[in-house]
Amino acid sequence: MLQRSFRITTKGRCDVIDITSKVEQVLKEAHFRYGLVNVSACGSTVGITTLEFEPGCVSDLQRALDKVAPSSSDYAHHQRWGDDNGYAHLRSAWIGTSKTFPLSDGKLRLGVWQQIVLCDFDSRPREREITVTVLGE
Amino acid sequence: MLQRSFRITTKGRCDVIDITSKVEQVLKEAHFRYGLVNVSACGSTVGITTLEFEPGCVSDLQRALDKVAPSSSDYAHHQRWGDDNGYAHLRSAWIGTSKTFPLSDGKLRLGVWQQIVLCDFDSRPREREITVTVLGE
Amino acid sequence: MLQRSFRITTKGRCDVIDITSKVEQVLKEAHFRYGLVNVSACGSTVGITTLEFEPGCVSDLQRALDKVAPSSSDYAHHQRWGDDNGYAHLRSAWIGTSKTFPLSDGKLRLGVWQQIVLCDFDSRPREREITVTVLGE
Repeated sequence: MLQRSFRITTKGRCDVIDITSKVEQVLKEAHFRYGLVNVSACGSTVGITTLEFEPGCVSDLQRALDKVAPSSSDYAHHQRWGDDNGYAHLRSAWIGTSKTFPLSDGKLRLGVWQQIVLCDFDSRPREREITVTVLGE
Repeated sequence: MLQRSFRITTKGRCDVIDITSKVEQVLKEAHFRYGLVNVSACGSTVGITTLEFEPGCVSDLQRALDKVAPSSSDYAHHQRWGDDNGYAHLRSAWIGTSKTFPLSDGKLRLGVWQQIVLCDFDSRPREREITVTVLGE
Repeated sequence: MLQRSFRITTKGRCDVIDITSKVEQVLKEAHFRYGLVNVSACGSTVGITTLEFEPGCVSDLQRALDKVAPSSSDYAHHQRWGDDNGYAHLRSAWIGTSKTFPLSDGKLRLGVWQQIVLCDFDSRPREREITVTVLGE
């Protein structure tokens, strides 16, 4: 078992950041060959998923999320604390804050065009903590 | 490795229930310090995700899900068994029935405003079984 | 720890394939009794989730995904490589390429009507590699 955390500064507002190399850096330290790698972000306005990380896919994702949970709509959450990020909570519940990947022969088993991305749905810049946990042998 | 199950009675119809303390109770028994905690629900009309558990966020999520998979629409699934819960199957496939979280220093690594929630999408009250599996050291 | 991969030929275009028995076949080899089973697909236009695998639910899912990420729309991703599968990338980021299930008494803890499905969102037939990783005792 190995667990490491790192921090990422985001711009918020559905900022999508490729964190694949950061995760691979943790794996270099681990010397595990086979097992599972869990990548988790802390918080209720953040998401972890995979995407072909190129500007087109990123803007397509941002546009699609703004259709199902528009940043311009009014949310019941806003009445609670005077917040303005109700859409961010929805997107996080939807995408999930954590994903688990197989480790094979010392490498993350991802597709060639598949990157691990952090999505910061919050309405403002944030510093996010990502935790990578490796279980295996 | 530790695995424990518990049961939750729901009202169905997108009932959203905070199960964080139930998961933490299992961890108290485990004495694991670092690893992974998987929280899974059994079934094809249920979901596990995280949310800021306050009434506003809950009703925002219920409203958003009713927009992408409306409970009032007709579904091909209904022709199969005479069921009325086609939307519940969609939402479950979408949100997922299981999430995995890091365990650090004996604690679930969640954000301050982030709770683990069971969403019962079915069209009627149900009793749901939740399984918590801890792997680590 | 046990890790096995298998290949599945798909028709693409939101082809939904029940892979539960393939996953169970790996478990037969493993003789693990309790733990976690991770099922992952490689790629950025594929998804793994659970569904009641019957034609109605499958077509409901296909129709719902075509509403949030229409195959007929234009995507910024298409400008990048001349691709035509922008919607497939969105659906994959949304559904996720991997799910983790508890193993109890040697069996996957799934509901009676809950199957593990591979969704191939790509715009053409593909051969997909699925990796099953079992951790436990």
